[in-house]
Order: sequence, then C-alpha cells, then structure tokens
Amino acid sequence: MNGLIEVGFMPKELRTVFWKRNQVRLIDQRKLPFKLSYISCNSYRDVAFAIKNMAVRGAPAIGVAAAMGMALAAKSGKNKTVEKLMLELEKAKKVLASTRPTAINLYWALERVMKVAREAAKSGNVEHVISSVLEEAKKMADEDVEVNRAIGRQGSTIIKDGDTILTHCNAGSLATVGYGTALGVIRAAFEDGKSISVIATETRPKLQGARLTAFELKMMGVPFKLITDGMVGYVMQQGLVSKVVVGADRILARSGHIVNKIGTLTIAISAKHFGIPLYIAAPTSTIDFESRPEDVVIEFRDEDEVHYVGRTRITPKGVKTINPAFDMTPPELVTAVITEKGIYEPHRLMELYRSITSQ
Amino acid sequence: MNGLIEVGFMPKELRTVFWKRNQVRLIDQRKLPFKLSYISCNSYRDVAFAIKNMAVRGAPAIGVAAAMGMALAAKSGKNKTVEKLMLELEKAKKVLASTRPTAINLYWALERVMKVAREAAKSGNVEHVISSVLEEAKKMADEDVEVNRAIGRQGSTIIKDGDTILTHCNAGSLATVGYGTALGVIRAAFEDGKSISVIATETRPKLQGARLTAFELKMMGVPFKLITDGMVGYVMQQGLVSKVVVGADRILARSGHIVNKIGTLTIAISAKHFGIPLYIAAPTSTIDFESRPEDVVIEFRDEDEVHYVGRTRITPKGVKTINPAFDMTPPELVTAVITEKGIYEPHRLMELYRSITSQ
Repeated sequence: MNGLIEVGFMPKELRTVFWKRNQVRLIDQRKLPFKLSYISCNSYRDVAFAIKNMAVRGAPAIGVAAAMGMALAAKSGKNKTVEKLMLELEKAKKVLASTRPTAINLYWALERVMKVAREAAKSGNVEHVISSVLEEAKKMADEDVEVNRAIGRQGSTIIKDGDTILTHCNAGSLATVGYGTALGVIRAAFEDGKSISVIATETRPKLQGARLTAFELKMMGVPFKLITDGMVGYVMQQGLVSKVVVGADRILARSGHIVNKIGTLTIAISAKHFGIPLYIAAPTSTIDFESRPEDVVIEFRDEDEVHYVGRTRITPKGVKTINPAFDMTPPELVTAVITEKGIYEPHRLMELYRSITSQ
Repeated sequence: MNGLIEVGFMPKELRTVFWKRNQVRLIDQRKLPFKLSYISCNSYRDVAFAIKNMAVRGAPAIGVAAAMGMALAAKSGKNKTVEKLMLELEKAKKVLASTRPTAINLYWALERVMKVAREAAKSGNVEHVISSVLEEAKKMADEDVEVNRAIGRQGSTIIKDGDTILTHCNAGSLATVGYGTALGVIRAAFEDGKSISVIATETRPKLQGARLTAFELKMMGVPFKLITDGMVGYVMQQGLVSKVVVGADRILARSGHIVNKIGTLTIAISAKHFGIPLYIAAPTSTIDFESRPEDVVIEFRDEDEVHYVGRTRITPKGVKTINPAFDMTPPELVTAVITEKGIYEPHRLMELYRSITSQ
C-alpha cells in the first residue's frame, strides 16, 4: 500500500489558516490525506509562495491567508515611518494579488486590509497601523468561520432527510479558515440530525475531492462514496443524486455566472439534464458586483498537473494538455446561491449589493 | 521524470492481437505508453486472465483474443475424439465468456467460433475441427482490420477540414486488432489529407485516453491535446470541439442505446447541451439486436482502480467508491452510428439486422 500513511492525529475541527507566534501557519494541503502538517510563513513572500503552489487553496482560505500575509509585511520591522510602511503594504498587496488571478476573495481581503491600514495611517503612528492590520486579519479569520456557520444554517434548510448530495472539489474546512461552505451546508444538515449521504468527485487534476473532501467527510462521519469526474452522468442517471452543492471562487452578481473549480460546468449541465437542483454555497465576499463574464481571467496552470498524478507520470512525453483551473457556469444551470445572508436565485444577486457595500 | 521511459521502437502499425508459433500474442496495454511489450498466451486460461486484468481491452480486441483463446483450447492436444474436443471448447467458451460481462463482441466471437467448430465436427475428424477453429480465429483478426478500415472510410465522409474531434477512452488500434474504430475514423480523415485535430479525455480510472490514445495519436502524427474528464464542458463551451467520435462496447439496436466506457454519457449530455454532434464508431459485431437496456450487465470493477493511479494512492484508507466500467447513453443524445456497412441514426439500427444475420 504504497504512500498509504494514514493521518494518525485527527483534530475535531480543522483550522486551515491561523496566526501564531508572529507567524502565519497553514495546513500543507499538498500532503493530505496522508500527513497533517503545517507550514510556517515568516514573510508575505512565504505566504504568496504557499498560495501559488497550492499548499493553501480555496477562495476564502487564500483570502484570509493573504490578509495575514499583509500583517507579516506590516510587522517586518523595516519601516520606521508610516509612509514607508504604507509603501511596503502596497508592495505586499501587489505580490499577494498576483498569486492567483481567478478567486475574488483574494482581492476583497487585500482591499479590506488596505482600507483599515489607510484609516490607521491617519494617526501617523507606525505601531497603530501594524496592530490594526494584524487585528483586521485575525478578525477576518474568525469572521470566516462564523460566516460559514451561517451559510450552513441557511443551506441546511434546503437539505432533506434521505438526500444524497453530490459535491465537487473541496469546499470544506480546508478551503476556508474552518467549517467550510459547500461542506459546511452538508455538515450543518448532518449536525441537524438529517440522514444524508454524499457523492464526492475526485476532481482531477489536483484531486481535491479524493484527497481533501474524502479526508474531511471521514472526519465528520458523513457516509460518502468517491467517483471519478466522468461518472457524474452515470450516478445522476441512476437516480443516486438528489442535489448538487458546490462552492465558488467568484460569483458574478450582474450576470449570475459562477466561476468555480474546473469540472463544475460539466456537472451543472448533467444536473440540468436530469432535473437535479444545483446550489452554490459561498460567502458574500465571493460575490463580484462589477465584473462581466468576459472580464474574468481563468487561470491556466502547469501542464504537468495533467501529465502526473503524484509522482506517477501518466502520459507519453511531449503531449500537450489544456489545464484551466476554473470554468464558468451560466445562471440558467444554477438553482440558487446559498450565502450567509440568505439564499438567492442567480438573477437576484444584485439585491445583496446594498447590504454588502453599506457595511 | 519518474516512470517516463519512452517507448523507443515505434512500429508503423500496431497489431494488438495475433497468432504466432502456436501462441496468442497480445500487446500488454497496462505497460503503455512507457513500454511496448507482448504477452504470450499458451492456453485459453492465459487469454482469459489477460482479458480480465485488461492487458488486452477494447470490445473488438477482446472478441478476437477470445476467438484465438478457443484455438489454443482446440490445439491443447488432450482431446483425442471430436466429442471430447467439443466438450473442451464448450468449457473454454464458458471461461472466456465469464471474463467481462458488458462488451458483446466477446459473445459474438465465441459463438462464431463455436458455429464453425460444430460444422467441422460433423466430419468426425479432430484435426479438421482444430484447423477450422484456428483458421476462423485468424480470419476474424484479419476481418477486424478490414472492417475498421471500412468504418474509417464511412466516417471520414462526415469529418470536415478544420474539425476538432473530441474522443474518449481508447477506440484505436489497441482496442481492436488494428486501425481502430473511433480513432480509425480520425486516422482515415487524416490520411485523406483533412486538416484536423483531436481533444482526448484522459479517461479515469484506467487512463486509456492519457496512456493509449495519446500514444496512438502521437504515432499517427495527428495534432491533439489531452484534457481531464471534467474539462469536457469547458472545451465545448469555448467552441473548441466540432464533433465527438467515440467507440462502443455494445449497441442496442432495438432501443438505440449505446454502452461504452464510463464517462461517455457525461460527454454526450454536454455535447447535446452545446449542439455538438456525437458519433459512435463501431463494427456491426458490436450491435446487439436482442437486448433491452435493462438486460445489459454493467461491469463493476475493483475499487482500487479509483483509489490508485499507477502505484500512487490518492484517497484516505477506508473510502468507498463507485466503479462502473461502462455507462449507457440514450439514443436522443446520439447523432449516428458509423459502421462498416454505413452510417445509421440510432432508431434505424434494426435495418442492419437482415444484412448481418443473412451473412
């Protein structure tokens, strides 16, 4: 059983990103499900590197990781004046923002931290700016868990006893600071005592479903089965799926399009074909109230992600691949978006604009 | 580059199954694309084992391999009377038929050999039965290549200059004795000088697309790109696919359903959604004129096919999977079936009945 070293220590709840002893600590998700280990970041560049190589992934998790990266930049100690500190923060923001282009939470989190920093900078006190940035980043981490619990409470209302929920990729604790979005809905329904089960797609090329969602569902004790991505049509045709619940990396409120892990569109088309409702579970920080579909940059990742599974090469030399990390599902394939503020059909998402921007 | 030993010797045309020095020789497809090696079978049980563990796979290829397995049973030399020989052949037929339940070519091939054996048995001459069985098996191998060339000629008429054809699994030389069915259509269009390209799905869990189709397309020199199974919706949405051409393991003429590699249904649903025509390329020996959809046994294979990629374990311990090897695509998702006798819409397949059964 090559490679099968089971994680021995199972914490009751995972915390994917946290601040400890002036470091940002991240679960190294590349090692899961075989090893639960942590990366310690001492600089914002360490955090940027961890986001880029997907040691930390999932839209809300990378948002908070980036915010904490800003706190590391602030605390680096080199900046003796507020002006220099603000320049350093702008530089860190640029580096962190350039790590991954598609998930909007990254920009949302960086902008939120910068807003707090600019406000604190008016005091002219370097220490005040530093502590404000750190407090905001920590607050965002705590808020993320609370928001996900609220998404879970909202989402649990649409889950019925006996439901089998298909989910894709990992929108669990590991994609957030804790609790999860799509897996948060599943967790909440399960905690509410509903008798449910899950079908998880393995999610090639990075296998977040086989590695991370399987790991989390095992921890939660929710019964589940794993399938390969091509089996989606089969399990739906066999009547094995009552609902689809997935996360999102960006939700376009104007048009109702959902940007999520590659494979979501294929699942959504099958769900529509078989009349199975599809829900998106995501915090309002994932909603983009400005962009149109043509504005969104879909990240293309290294071709070797397709050529290899772990260390196993699967293709002949010189084979070209297409490797988009995300796809875009149009609103007509989406039943509703479950947020911490309620459940919205895609064409109603702009109604959230005032309640978000007036905060 | 772990595992990346490229096949050095590239034969001009692959012959997947052949008879040589009283042995059945098979390309060991589990070793591809990194090693082109052959298995020598000395008994029908060797052939049954090779079919079961997928050293040889693809509906037409396992049909011919089984027929040649019958020739090995006939030549085993233990049977001094025609009666004993016929009992031995019946036993071998049963063992070979039990290897894989879904592809119909296996039963078709075994029945065809038995018919010849029964006819020859009337002579009362053991040697005559043995040579008749062997000659029939060899004839079936040669016929398979000829039939595939005819499918290619038929199919090439529907391929236009500039087309990009999406194919799934491997329906190439390696799935047949030679030339291929779906890849035969692509090969014929390419040999006709049409400027075409291919998108191949990797086809988890066994990766026939990434390993075998990629290997064959490289040999042919057809430009292609590899995608993971979940990317099907994305490439279709982006307008990158003009036609889908896949093989089949069983075609139900009465209802028009197509049984093929798991994942085909998901692709067919996406193709329908985007208005992309989907063609099935298969010999008439793949057509089942009797069964209804509920009669077809879908083979479920070992769960470890999903747990592992090569030697790399991808899931935590104790995870349950669903692992059907095939799925069934209903006729409303199929544009037409390309056979050696012409191109038929699914509802017209029974028209082939007389021309097949009167042979």
